[in-house]
Amino acid sequence: MSLLVIGTVAFDAIETPFGKTDKIVGGAATYAGLAASYFYDKVKIVAVVGDDFPAEEIADFNAHKIDTEGLQVKKGEKSFFWSGKYHNDMNTRDTLVTDLNVLADFDPIIPESYQDCEYLMLGNLTPQVQQTVIKRLKNRPKLIVMDTMNFWMDIALDDLLETVKMVDVLTINDAEARQLSGEYSLVKAAKIILAMGPKYLIIKKGEHGALLFHEDHIFSAPALPLAEVFDPTGAGDTFAGGFIGYMAKVGTINFNNMKNAIIFGSALASLCVEKFGTEKIKNLTDEEVAQRVQQFVSLSSFEI
Amino acid sequence: MSLLVIGTVAFDAIETPFGKTDKIVGGAATYAGLAASYFYDKVKIVAVVGDDFPAEEIADFNAHKIDTEGLQVKKGEKSFFWSGKYHNDMNTRDTLVTDLNVLADFDPIIPESYQDCEYLMLGNLTPQVQQTVIKRLKNRPKLIVMDTMNFWMDIALDDLLETVKMVDVLTINDAEARQLSGEYSLVKAAKIILAMGPKYLIIKKGEHGALLFHEDHIFSAPALPLAEVFDPTGAGDTFAGGFIGYMAKVGTINFNNMKNAIIFGSALASLCVEKFGTEKIKNLTDEEVAQRVQQFVSLSSFEI
Repeated sequence: MSLLVIGTVAFDAIETPFGKTDKIVGGAATYAGLAASYFYDKVKIVAVVGDDFPAEEIADFNAHKIDTEGLQVKKGEKSFFWSGKYHNDMNTRDTLVTDLNVLADFDPIIPESYQDCEYLMLGNLTPQVQQTVIKRLKNRPKLIVMDTMNFWMDIALDDLLETVKMVDVLTINDAEARQLSGEYSLVKAAKIILAMGPKYLIIKKGEHGALLFHEDHIFSAPALPLAEVFDPTGAGDTFAGGFIGYMAKVGTINFNNMKNAIIFGSALASLCVEKFGTEKIKNLTDEEVAQRVQQFVSLSSFEI
Repeated sequence: MSLLVIGTVAFDAIETPFGKTDKIVGGAATYAGLAASYFYDKVKIVAVVGDDFPAEEIADFNAHKIDTEGLQVKKGEKSFFWSGKYHNDMNTRDTLVTDLNVLADFDPIIPESYQDCEYLMLGNLTPQVQQTVIKRLKNRPKLIVMDTMNFWMDIALDDLLETVKMVDVLTINDAEARQLSGEYSLVKAAKIILAMGPKYLIIKKGEHGALLFHEDHIFSAPALPLAEVFDPTGAGDTFAGGFIGYMAKVGTINFNNMKNAIIFGSALASLCVEKFGTEKIKNLTDEEVAQRVQQFVSLSSFEI
């Protein structure tokens, strides 16, 4: 039994109104893997880096009990690099640099020891690569969660739709839900997207929280209003990682557990954005996580 | 003991992607008064109309047990008229016509029988007129709720700030909170606005719900995701009316009751937008309201 996370492990250079970083470690699998590790101790990563990727960063994964056998290190090649600058509202950003490097021909090889995968997190990547991972697993995982983005809707919609059909949970943001469905109302959008295959749809609304749709049920999770968002990079991946990590921990797939999983994912995401890059999400205590979850409880509870 | 609602009683002509109306009855006091009447039976209105305003519409107020002694009818003059067109997203609108008419020199006269006012709802109007009402009440009400908008921040900021200082609860939307405070973060904005005088601040976020701030406490209320928003006109006024109506019903001013009041206000607002103008909010049953409130409960409850 394990939780497999596939996605990017990469370098980011980030500029926000609060400052800027040199190349720091980022990537969807990095954030999602670290987040999941707070709830589940059998997290395994499939990703690719160049030999410029620091050994101590891989050791950091292992310190979080994350299995890195599936992390390919390509000799003489460079890791994926992304650089972006956030606007003052922190909700919009400009991409300054995207160097695919090793990611250009990423072949997601699944080590034999990963075939016990019960929970699969498909971090944001080409839908083709995400699909390959599903096909290479001998047994279909109990729960497949897929994250994606508008970019793939623009350039690889057919592949995306084919992959969406194979997963249990799809996580996208509100603009992406509208783009994918062609409907402005999120209720109508959700109905259309659920008919595409996934049994559950999570619509992420950033500072406005998240919505979970399943059959005729809707759950609205709040976002914690924060005085300062230092760096939003990785918040969505952290959310997804916390979500599936919690699901792996509880082990039973149902709507009520998913509601809690969203709260735990949101709590981790709200911690993640308080510092640059992975700084916060790498160094959390269980107590910090529990306290933040309690803040979500008191933020949204009422008694009628 | 009564709940006094001051605001506009007016004509609207509305165009949305779903259709358009001729002149129909609208106005902040209309929506707020009707909404409050579902929870409290001593609602009294102070407003002004021309003699073009239909007697049967006044009778409709009375059918909802709303006292209209303070509704001035100006002979030979016309009622306030607003016309607007909503864009496809329903969140933005263009104002096509604003005819102040009787509103231009509105003097809010408080009938002697209204002096028992314990709950005061200052609907969106010039801050000067809102302030006059407070001053004309011999005893300060137990709870004063003030709604306002960016327009008054643009053209009457000093008056606005003076009035804000005198109230208990201020309700504005997120853009207005940012404008009034000069802060983008709503947490920082709330801190600044609470320092201006009100003990409670409600930030309305439309389809994203509402936030209640009080000292160091925050409550996040969801909005009900709707398949179709027919006409958003009056949703904010309905919310405010439902809010103060519920507070008048329970009678004790505290954070927990305000949380519930926000849910009841939100429930009524979500019903309001399902039809054009006041059509829905005029004809609700207690059961419909209770059912909608239950939808809010199941929408946002989780157990950790």
